Amino acid sequence: MKINILTLFPNMFDGMINESIIKKALNNNLVEINIINIRDYAKGKHKVTDDYPFGGGPGMVLKPEPLFEALAEMKDSKVILTSPQGEMFNQSIAKKLLKEKEITIIAGHYEGLDERVVDTFVDMEISIGDYVLTGGELPAMVISDAIIRLIPNVLNNSKSFEEDSFYNGLLDHPHYTRPAEYKELKVPAVLLSGNHEKIRKWRLKEALKRTLERRPELIKERELSKEEKKTIEEILNER
Amino acid sequence: MKINILTLFPNMFDGMINESIIKKALNNNLVEINIINIRDYAKGKHKVTDDYPFGGGPGMVLKPEPLFEALAEMKDSKVILTSPQGEMFNQSIAKKLLKEKEITIIAGHYEGLDERVVDTFVDMEISIGDYVLTGGELPAMVISDAIIRLIPNVLNNSKSFEEDSFYNGLLDHPHYTRPAEYKELKVPAVLLSGNHEKIRKWRLKEALKRTLERRPELIKERELSKEEKKTIEEILNER
Repeated sequence: MKINILTLFPNMFDGMINESIIKKALNNNLVEINIINIRDYAKGKHKVTDDYPFGGGPGMVLKPEPLFEALAEMKDSKVILTSPQGEMFNQSIAKKLLKEKEITIIAGHYEGLDERVVDTFVDMEISIGDYVLTGGELPAMVISDAIIRLIPNVLNNSKSFEEDSFYNGLLDHPHYTRPAEYKELKVPAVLLSGNHEKIRKWRLKEALKRTLERRPELIKERELSKEEKKTIEEILNER
Repeated sequence: MKINILTLFPNMFDGMINESIIKKALNNNLVEINIINIRDYAKGKHKVTDDYPFGGGPGMVLKPEPLFEALAEMKDSKVILTSPQGEMFNQSIAKKLLKEKEITIIAGHYEGLDERVVDTFVDMEISIGDYVLTGGELPAMVISDAIIRLIPNVLNNSKSFEEDSFYNGLLDHPHYTRPAEYKELKVPAVLLSGNHEKIRKWRLKEALKRTLERRPELIKERELSKEEKKTIEEILNER
């Protein structure tokens, strides 16, 4: 898979590319990432990329020409614009995008970009959440990261399991590791019992408890198993 | 305001700190950011930070000791854990956190961290969206960025306006800049008319149109003005 990112701040991506799992994926040629400076496509001595909005108002708008020239080179690519106006990003969009051979993400800045760019090239506007950020760079990284970790062989098996665990539709149960007692704080005894069935039941109960408390809508949307129904009754009786 | 970030991958923050608006805020002492390597608090020759989970299962768990030692030094800080199990981040949480003098964000990794750390130190678990990422670093950056841009004097006026515009509860209208015609694509004539009242009406209509299409729930939650009601009727009649 190839991911192009169009940005006015290419150095913001240094940390992402040079660290951890993404770096390994790049080194193993499991993904190709091109960070493209929009300014490289701007004309003239000053390489101006933005201009005042027609009709007045505050802020600047990204000019159409540099983006038209840059995007003309990425014709077979799915073009995504990061934008507070976009569809809310989620795991199923990440999985859908994983099927693309090439993705181009435009990291928006200033007030926005000339709408003719959107009309001509953009296949999808994506928002990563209902909050305002200084620019589209972090959203571009978030979208890339969520997709790249789904590429086969990028993660080892245990990590893929992590995803399955979250996306079985329940929040995760608590985790504990050594020491069994630290500053008088003890790990729940059941986890030290060696009784796998008891441990499984405890983890299910804790996962259901958390989900009920924090994201009750996930329980409502879920087809509950017999065991899950019984465990929820237990939890409600204990309250 | 002081923001501490506890991470196993401190270099991932290089891009964020050395670019754009955050860099300017740091240079002007409007915010202090400490990137702290959890490994610096690990003991022994190998500075081990993770261990196998009690009760079995895949993946590794962050050990309690390094985090206990690091967090003991940040007693007056609001401690946030980035986690898919957390409360969904949004603009009103960003505004609430802006009131804190000091925030510490733990960027989670591996399967999770020992729950005793959460029970003892964590004030708030935050998720930035319903998608899975390789780690908590990008969420830590997103949360920091959303807060820092709200600190007075970090943004110039036009940028603050941008936020007001998004958070008047409607999606933004389209933007256009020069040239008025590019590759036979023309800017809507009204924007070139110089008639400010017509331009205001056009923008309101476009903002309502987009919001109706993409985020109808925002219209439902909204107390509509007379003009907005009339404009929505117009839009529905044109469909």
